[in-house]
Amino acid sequence: MKTLLSSFICCLLFFDTSAKDGYGLWLDYSPVENPQLKTQIDPLFSGFFFFGESPTYDVIRKELDIAGQKMLGKTPIYSKERLAQSKVWLGTREQLSQVLGLQQQVDIRDLGEDGFWMGPIDFQGKTYFTIVGNRPIGVLYGVFDWLKTIQTGAFDPRLQKSDSPKVRLRMLNHWDNLDRTVERGYAGFSIWDWHKLPGYIDPRYIDYARANASIGINAVSLTNVNANARILTTDFMKKAKVLADIFRPYGIKVFLTARFSAPIEIGGLKTADPLDPEVIAFWKNKTDEMYSFIPDFGGYLVKANSEGQPGPHEYQRNHAEGANVLADALAPHDGILIWRAFVYSHELDEDRHKHANLEFEPLDGKFRENVIIQVKNGAIDFMPREPFHPLFGAVKSTNLGIEFQITQEYLGQATQLVFLAPMWEEVLRSRTYRPTSASTVAGIIDGSDSGQKLTLMAGVSNIGTDRNWTGHLFGQANWYAFGRQAWDHSLTSAQIADEWIKMTFGQKPEVLSKINEILLGSHEAAVNYMMPLGLHHIMGWDHHYGPGPWVTGGRPDWTALYYHQADSMGIGFDRTASGSDALGQYAPELVNAYADPNQIPEKYLLWFHHLPWDFEMKSGKTLWEEIGLHYDQGVKTARKMKESWSSLESEIDPERFDHVRQLLAVQVSEAEWWRNSCLLYFQTFAKRPFPEEIEQPEGDLEYYKSLRFPTAPGIRPRW
Amino acid sequence: MKTLLSSFICCLLFFDTSAKDGYGLWLDYSPVENPQLKTQIDPLFSGFFFFGESPTYDVIRKELDIAGQKMLGKTPIYSKERLAQSKVWLGTREQLSQVLGLQQQVDIRDLGEDGFWMGPIDFQGKTYFTIVGNRPIGVLYGVFDWLKTIQTGAFDPRLQKSDSPKVRLRMLNHWDNLDRTVERGYAGFSIWDWHKLPGYIDPRYIDYARANASIGINAVSLTNVNANARILTTDFMKKAKVLADIFRPYGIKVFLTARFSAPIEIGGLKTADPLDPEVIAFWKNKTDEMYSFIPDFGGYLVKANSEGQPGPHEYQRNHAEGANVLADALAPHDGILIWRAFVYSHELDEDRHKHANLEFEPLDGKFRENVIIQVKNGAIDFMPREPFHPLFGAVKSTNLGIEFQITQEYLGQATQLVFLAPMWEEVLRSRTYRPTSASTVAGIIDGSDSGQKLTLMAGVSNIGTDRNWTGHLFGQANWYAFGRQAWDHSLTSAQIADEWIKMTFGQKPEVLSKINEILLGSHEAAVNYMMPLGLHHIMGWDHHYGPGPWVTGGRPDWTALYYHQADSMGIGFDRTASGSDALGQYAPELVNAYADPNQIPEKYLLWFHHLPWDFEMKSGKTLWEEIGLHYDQGVKTARKMKESWSSLESEIDPERFDHVRQLLAVQVSEAEWWRNSCLLYFQTFAKRPFPEEIEQPEGDLEYYKSLRFPTAPGIRPRW
Repeated sequence: MKTLLSSFICCLLFFDTSAKDGYGLWLDYSPVENPQLKTQIDPLFSGFFFFGESPTYDVIRKELDIAGQKMLGKTPIYSKERLAQSKVWLGTREQLSQVLGLQQQVDIRDLGEDGFWMGPIDFQGKTYFTIVGNRPIGVLYGVFDWLKTIQTGAFDPRLQKSDSPKVRLRMLNHWDNLDRTVERGYAGFSIWDWHKLPGYIDPRYIDYARANASIGINAVSLTNVNANARILTTDFMKKAKVLADIFRPYGIKVFLTARFSAPIEIGGLKTADPLDPEVIAFWKNKTDEMYSFIPDFGGYLVKANSEGQPGPHEYQRNHAEGANVLADALAPHDGILIWRAFVYSHELDEDRHKHANLEFEPLDGKFRENVIIQVKNGAIDFMPREPFHPLFGAVKSTNLGIEFQITQEYLGQATQLVFLAPMWEEVLRSRTYRPTSASTVAGIIDGSDSGQKLTLMAGVSNIGTDRNWTGHLFGQANWYAFGRQAWDHSLTSAQIADEWIKMTFGQKPEVLSKINEILLGSHEAAVNYMMPLGLHHIMGWDHHYGPGPWVTGGRPDWTALYYHQADSMGIGFDRTASGSDALGQYAPELVNAYADPNQIPEKYLLWFHHLPWDFEMKSGKTLWEEIGLHYDQGVKTARKMKESWSSLESEIDPERFDHVRQLLAVQVSEAEWWRNSCLLYFQTFAKRPFPEEIEQPEGDLEYYKSLRFPTAPGIRPRW
Repeated sequence: MKTLLSSFICCLLFFDTSAKDGYGLWLDYSPVENPQLKTQIDPLFSGFFFFGESPTYDVIRKELDIAGQKMLGKTPIYSKERLAQSKVWLGTREQLSQVLGLQQQVDIRDLGEDGFWMGPIDFQGKTYFTIVGNRPIGVLYGVFDWLKTIQTGAFDPRLQKSDSPKVRLRMLNHWDNLDRTVERGYAGFSIWDWHKLPGYIDPRYIDYARANASIGINAVSLTNVNANARILTTDFMKKAKVLADIFRPYGIKVFLTARFSAPIEIGGLKTADPLDPEVIAFWKNKTDEMYSFIPDFGGYLVKANSEGQPGPHEYQRNHAEGANVLADALAPHDGILIWRAFVYSHELDEDRHKHANLEFEPLDGKFRENVIIQVKNGAIDFMPREPFHPLFGAVKSTNLGIEFQITQEYLGQATQLVFLAPMWEEVLRSRTYRPTSASTVAGIIDGSDSGQKLTLMAGVSNIGTDRNWTGHLFGQANWYAFGRQAWDHSLTSAQIADEWIKMTFGQKPEVLSKINEILLGSHEAAVNYMMPLGLHHIMGWDHHYGPGPWVTGGRPDWTALYYHQADSMGIGFDRTASGSDALGQYAPELVNAYADPNQIPEKYLLWFHHLPWDFEMKSGKTLWEEIGLHYDQGVKTARKMKESWSSLESEIDPERFDHVRQLLAVQVSEAEWWRNSCLLYFQTFAKRPFPEEIEQPEGDLEYYKSLRFPTAPGIRPRW
């Protein structure tokens, strides 16, 4: 026993010194400690039987190898015959048709192409734990779900469970440039090493695919929407093909961004006019070539006529004409064209908030069937909090997908712990009142309210070369949450947090409850110390790091002043009928509710209203006082998060503990910096004292304004 | 026994799945398998006693913790008292003066500030294994050396060993930009995360310091010689201070690159004239400020008046006047000014080979005592093979340091296994015949021939964010070899290879012999398939990736044609008296030997001579035939390296095996690409058939010339 124990300690030491750097994500598969669970699981790993073969089954075996070794110290045994030795059955509905009941087969069929069922099957006097999908990928999803029940201590051998995703395309958008810089990337650089492809395959590509498949992500766009046409050259197709081959058994399709001017840049044409026959032929030939390398290529993602990107407007064509030429090239291959709605004209003539609706509503019904319009969750730009985008519910015959930003451009970047699931949940559950009075954003994008068949939830990736993938270890929770919400938007943030914590840090009650509280309070804290009560777009110039309510110069709609409109009279952007009337783009129910500053939820107050500093809030305090209280509350919550984490020192391995400890200290100082500089700045207009009950903002406004951050990461590339 | 075994397998599995990604470098401390060695070592780890305290002793304890756990599965015990429990004594000569003999103390003192002695000491009837330095850092060096004896199976408890470095500054030069790109970096991006400093300390900084200290590196310049003045602002000093604090206990001093025009760019002055009183004051104040943050700051490294960098020539001042203003600012703090000799005027008026000597010889004796002129190993630019730089031996009263390039800009970049130690060894042992007929390059830079006290060997770092630090796993061997050669240039490449292989891959004879052969033959192979027989500078434009003998356009001395001079008559650069007479800058002994194409070592033939295609070589074959044979031989050796590695599949862990396997396949195809395109290109001048006995070059020259590599890494930043 003594030798056993010392060997086990040796084992743990080895493990601890090498593995707790966060690389393993939620798939680190901690050893199963609960003896009862171990007793239940261990025999299952001695008899996996596959009803057939598939490259996806090969990767399932790889995953079971890893999980078995890490959770049980055991190499799984794959049975060659179906009955005597086998304990776990895996295969498609069709492969298992002889052992499934008829009703069961119908039920499983109805789960759709990505669904799965798992549970015990009694057959000839023996019980087999069975995982079935309609396709091999469904089996993989089922296996990951089953492994999760072990990781979270929820496994029950009598468990019966079926699940299927609500959205067809669950997609990551990488804003990765070909030189490996990442626009708005805060986790190092691009994991795509284009130079070494196709000759060298980084093992990380495989772990990336594993992680995505484990949460149901089935599409990835590899390149920045501010696109480089070179990705569509033959050399780069050969490189992308290698990635597509790696991702295929994991059920992940590759998309690429298409630069609208590619016909000129790499096609040698004089125009990119979408109605020009040579341009049409360019896109057709280019796309045919792409499919010769990647037969299941997903399609193109396009940002056009936005922020300097080329597009159809140069040729007096509209977005539908621009999108359809690419869509037509893709259609014979069942490819999909995703066209972004994040557009606003360069010559500013009114509230930027309204532009997407003004441009896209008139085009409703004009896009091909294989086009999806990808709409950001809000009308401005991934602010810490935005009301949902008014395009949701405004069109009837256009496929709409939603785009969230997982990377924390406006939510703390490289250094802050901000769990985004509550924000996404808030958006998805927002009522649009269109097409029906019960409609929600989620119901539109999953088709249940809108009727659309082609559905999409996209997230701008927060993944980079940092060892832990996401820079901040807790950025992993956002990647995880995005996948889970894209799969099933009815999951709550709390449920998702609970899963992630258990898979990442284990199941100790104290760890679970404290980290849960940290996660679930973090978004509201960030909104409070950055942009409370509907304030928006008051961050630093260009790099967007830290506060910049004083930012002026250049395009008005790239300044802070344009958005907060602070003056001696008050603060906020009047988007009611007396102002820009952006509010008028929403359903009448919302217009009615939001037009009145006393009725609108206060979290959106200054988004839609310009109000006097002494405006009376629901609390009875003035607007000025409430602004101060919110900023101060944000700082206090950040400090509490830091203290709460510190109390877990004995429960978390030193490397991850210290990583998060250091970053929470930075977060507190950044929260104080936001509070102090915003309040000092707004005070120059409000000319009122700070509420007595808050910690008085410290420092010198001129000092804060003088700060420069030349090495802030993630700046947009410049051509 | 069964449970013990299964636990041990569990342990190995854990270990294998997580630790073999190369992050551990040569400090991965494999478990000691030899039972006799284990018996000898194990008790020592139960009783370390330090004769005093020092931050360096704290990091020694950390290292012993890691080594003990990894090699023995054991946490070391640090004894509180000197006698009863202790087994290993550690401390400085002064601290151990009561237990060391008088002669022993004298001997140790003579080892200098970085030397150490280790061996058994008998005291009051008991034997203590003892490691002594003159300073705590000497103890650290001794501990690393002792651990190496364990790692390589060479430990002998009766061992007595003393060692000390031959060169005072053993330095890495990082060409890292503040935005984390790395000029000529092929291992990802800069490990310095300036944005997150000073708030966040990446644990990698500590592992970097450990690795450097373990091979005796004691100075690092953090920033690119194509410098950004911003590194000298207060904000960045605060960041650099954090790194300096981490490195200090490891004996590593921080240097920074100083942009000569910094007085204008960050000082608000109108001039950077080194004789201007305001400029003098700027450098003094700036330097004083630096030392207020980093009291042991090493000094500045400057590239001036070279490749577009600003310098004293703009003000009609010479290099000495430029260097001395910075040296004077550093002198009160014992700082050192390192000034690069890699200069060549923008208006080309003669052979670039001669420029450094033309500029620096007249300044001999004019530099301050705390200035070192850092000279590249050869006069052109880190070519696959160069004769030593003619400045070595040409000056008498100037401190000269040597600069090697560890990063493989011209030697295979990200994808090739090329062990550089043989190349460096060749340079260091080259006879300069000055100041004495027995002088060598090594004797000049270590002071033994030149008499200089301030000595330096610098290497341009090959370190980046890639998990294994160096991109190619075998890049680690070059980092290791550089440190070892800087410590002791009398070590042979074979000795160094032997150490590194054992520490990295273990001691199996087959592994050792095959990898040794691969390493030691790899440099000659690369020379053969890239630039044999003295050919040079015929690589791709700008990114320097792959062959480009056809490169023309722009500055003549940045083209290939300028260097190979191929025409219908022959090939090679005539640098004898009938040509540029660059040869005349060497000692007469070399001039005599090299002026005759029949006497000069053939490896330098085309470096110094333009010769007809039918020139008869020592083999009796023509020059044209020998060129073909060399290119072909290079390809064949690369293939043999690949085959030899493949035969080790069962001996190497899968992750590292496959990493190297993939890259060797790329290397073979790149070698073929070099051979085919260079031979096809030169054939257009030679108009002769290829030798029959070689594999005939394949492909179409126009195709090779059309290749473009827009994502080749490591391009110089552009301002």
